[in-house]
Amino acid sequence: MTTTQARTEPDHAHGTEPSADAPAAPAAAGHHGPHGYSAQKDAHLKRLRRIEGQIRGLQRMVDEDVYCIDVLTQVSAGTKALQSFALSLLEEHLRHCVAAAAEEGGAELDAKVAEATAAIARLLRS
Amino acid sequence: MTTTQARTEPDHAHGTEPSADAPAAPAAAGHHGPHGYSAQKDAHLKRLRRIEGQIRGLQRMVDEDVYCIDVLTQVSAGTKALQSFALSLLEEHLRHCVAAAAEEGGAELDAKVAEATAAIARLLRS
Amino acid sequence: MTTTQARTEPDHAHGTEPSADAPAAPAAAGHHGPHGYSAQKDAHLKRLRRIEGQIRGLQRMVDEDVYCIDVLTQVSAGTKALQSFALSLLEEHLRHCVAAAAEEGGAELDAKVAEATAAIARLLRS
Amino acid sequence: MTTTQARTEPDHAHGTEPSADAPAAPAAAGHHGPHGYSAQKDAHLKRLRRIEGQIRGLQRMVDEDVYCIDVLTQVSAGTKALQSFALSLLEEHLRHCVAAAAEEGGAELDAKVAEATAAIARLLRS
Repeated sequence: MTTTQARTEPDHAHGTEPSADAPAAPAAAGHHGPHGYSAQKDAHLKRLRRIEGQIRGLQRMVDEDVYCIDVLTQVSAGTKALQSFALSLLEEHLRHCVAAAAEEGGAELDAKVAEATAAIARLLRS
Repeated sequence: MTTTQARTEPDHAHGTEPSADAPAAPAAAGHHGPHGYSAQKDAHLKRLRRIEGQIRGLQRMVDEDVYCIDVLTQVSAGTKALQSFALSLLEEHLRHCVAAAAEEGGAELDAKVAEATAAIARLLRS
Repeated sequence: MTTTQARTEPDHAHGTEPSADAPAAPAAAGHHGPHGYSAQKDAHLKRLRRIEGQIRGLQRMVDEDVYCIDVLTQVSAGTKALQSFALSLLEEHLRHCVAAAAEEGGAELDAKVAEATAAIARLLRS
Repeated sequence: MTTTQARTEPDHAHGTEPSADAPAAPAAAGHHGPHGYSAQKDAHLKRLRRIEGQIRGLQRMVDEDVYCIDVLTQVSAGTKALQSFALSLLEEHLRHCVAAAAEEGGAELDAKVAEATAAIARLLRS
């Protein structure tokens, strides 16, 4: 559906200049600065690698003819892990992008909120 | 679980006066001014009354021994309608409360975003 | 969406007389004999009335401007109750209709299983 | 969709000795006989490998800082693919295991149906 355009959100500051963005922003580091975002990114990648391991585990189970109910239990665990990854992405998105749009207000905010809501709707329906 | 404390969100203006809503809007505007929110509220109530009708329809179906697969189809429709109601509430919440919190920034924003994320997680798990 | 054709499942006896329920039981016991099914039906109706009460509770909450996150929590509870009702219907369906079809085997079983799977898919997507 | 083998995986055996497993197994065919199940198994493995590819795609997206909404869209696609895999497993399970239990009837059927329903409940909640 969407592609790999890296950085599609260049205008909605992820706090390169925190002072302008966030009245009280204490620590400064941007959302993908050397600290904050990188740490998040590592956490995301770690999570995804664990999910990849779960999917490979499922392949082994199918390959070894494990009882289908047990396979289904693992599928539920994988789905839950994916949803949980989605929630952490979403939380980050609300905190940074939606909040940044709020400062611009008006149409910009409406667009970001509509976009986030549509993403949540897709998660709910999947 | 939750109770009926009306107006738990007094500080996060809901935009009766968009101009005042801007960056610094610290003041006043109620959560359902004469325009915006009232219209929304009527729409919400209308939606909920339709869902109530769907639930009563389900009772009739069970009472008349309708084939269970057909009852299940109606249950899915009711669930979908509830989820869709939830999404419209959530969109409103992001647009108003989260955006207002963004203006205060810091801890206030973090708290609102965490709260919204937890609500989305509950929807995903239900 | 679906309609009210009561008794679409006339051939798949619902066990008032388990012995007669066996392979050939074509006619026999109705889908809600004096015991088994009636009790189930009362339980279903009771559950649905409780859900109807939850939906009315939601209307009150919206009407009293309860904080949206609290309304969302109640929506999740309502959705969960509907899903749980669906699961109990489904369990009954598998136990009676799918099992009866299993005795006929072949195309009849395939059709019932495909139908049940489609119903589960709708629940998952709602 | 699925075919053949009567009596798959009777007592959660993962099919080591089908004949010992299934007292009444009419046709004998094992749970992964040379035809039916193998084909299914290949289809399952192929599906899972595609899902594994989706998860790796997600890692790339995160690594390249793709806009979070686009990542979320891909998460939804992955979740949907997992659910769809689960549904095909479940359909197979109902057609084979639940149907086989139906022939034994009574407690055996009740146990299988309760087990399948619990698996469906886990899918719904994940």
